Amino acid sequence: LVHVKNPHLDSMEEDILYHLDLGTKTHNLPAMFGDIKFVCVGGSPNRMRAFAQFMHKELGLAGDGEDLADICAGTDRYAMYRAGPVLSISHGMGIPSISIMLHELIKLLHHAKCRDVTIIRIGTSGGLGIEAGSVVITDTAVDSSFRPQFEQVVLGDMVVRSTELDEELAKELLACSKEIPDFPTLIGHTMCTYDFYEGQGRLDGALCSFSSEKKLEYLRRAYDAGVRNIEMESTAFAALCRLCGLRGESSRSRFHPT
Amino acid sequence: LVHVKNPHLDSMEEDILYHLDLGTKTHNLPAMFGDIKFVCVGGSPNRMRAFAQFMHKELGLAGDGEDLADICAGTDRYAMYRAGPVLSISHGMGIPSISIMLHELIKLLHHAKCRDVTIIRIGTSGGLGIEAGSVVITDTAVDSSFRPQFEQVVLGDMVVRSTELDEELAKELLACSKEIPDFPTLIGHTMCTYDFYEGQGRLDGALCSFSSEKKLEYLRRAYDAGVRNIEMESTAFAALCRLCGLRGESSRSRFHPT
Repeated sequence: LVHVKNPHLDSMEEDILYHLDLGTKTHNLPAMFGDIKFVCVGGSPNRMRAFAQFMHKELGLAGDGEDLADICAGTDRYAMYRAGPVLSISHGMGIPSISIMLHELIKLLHHAKCRDVTIIRIGTSGGLGIEAGSVVITDTAVDSSFRPQFEQVVLGDMVVRSTELDEELAKELLACSKEIPDFPTLIGHTMCTYDFYEGQGRLDGALCSFSSEKKLEYLRRAYDAGVRNIEMESTAFAALCRLCGLRGESSRSRFHPT
Repeated sequence: LVHVKNPHLDSMEEDILYHLDLGTKTHNLPAMFGDIKFVCVGGSPNRMRAFAQFMHKELGLAGDGEDLADICAGTDRYAMYRAGPVLSISHGMGIPSISIMLHELIKLLHHAKCRDVTIIRIGTSGGLGIEAGSVVITDTAVDSSFRPQFEQVVLGDMVVRSTELDEELAKELLACSKEIPDFPTLIGHTMCTYDFYEGQGRLDGALCSFSSEKKLEYLRRAYDAGVRNIEMESTAFAALCRLCGLRGESSRSRFHPT
């Protein structure tokens, strides 16, 4: 079962999942979601709709899957589609945005009494020292100092959480990749930053105070620490999944654009 | 003029604003945006479209404004509409998401040679010890420890930036509010957090390790430090606007939902 770790929830008469436009009194969550086994998440709503349509076809479900309804149509914060036992959800960009979605998704899976759920983040990322188009399966998410941890502020105090991901799942995904010739696939660390421009060493933001040499030196240090791709959600994703009993993730890699 | 503080930009042949789907070679940015004087930003794309339609009517522009085109229609990361000299843009939720948009917006205004631009964030927020529906005009954005600063990681090192907003603009906005009887309006500090649930002391997330008493104690300390509302973007917004010569902001307040 998916765990929530919040003693207050039991005493709440109604749980409103604000940003998903769902709730325990307005929706029959066990009927809608009780048989979900996989959740795939990524930043862009259009891409997550396209992924759900792709899964619909792959699973051989009835119809062409072109008219899948957005389950969160009442809000424009996130988009959610389902194809059989697979839920496909967008999370926007950055840790705060994915955190809101994950809190509400975890409560959703808990209320729906889902069992043995695997969650995979399939968003884009910048590759580091690897072939363009490679897929990086994350073993551990690290912060901008290459530490395997996620710092969460709770009532003004810092709490440090582990960001290791499911080792067995990573191996299973790597084994799957052997059957597909087109995608070079590897297991590595994924670095998560709070900023796309200055935080990832880009030279083309509105602000940039460092040289190209300093940028390359930082990225080289990241590579030496085992980092193979960079994105903006993995540490929060890993920490929340671990704490709540969800098996997690892989992250798609592209070429680092600058 | 809007400043960019990046010496690398001058030597770039083309500047692609990836997440806005605009660029210096593909679009005539001075023709499209050179006369922009106000930029209003908020989290939700639908609301920013509604705001642009409202401005269209308020300014007495031709047509009913119902068919305003999304200038960023080629991407689903952000939405952008214009009504006369006013640009209305969505930024998603959280500091990383608004930061990406602001970097690209500031470069856009720079390339378009805009002058004397005022930027106002009009998103929702949770009010603290104030009447429901009040509007809080932010004088200073503070972090979760009530410090007037934004910590930005640049190549793994922490850089601390000031988060004061334009005092004259805050007074002007307060003066405007006197003409509208329906909205109680005040000037105060706005607290910016990286997390909606644990970070803002909510009792209804998937994780919650604190009591209702501890939550109230934290919110009381925030109030005593001058905080009147809580949201998730203001420190990054204030820091970037200050550094790049944009006058900024007000933040709309609602009742704290839990």
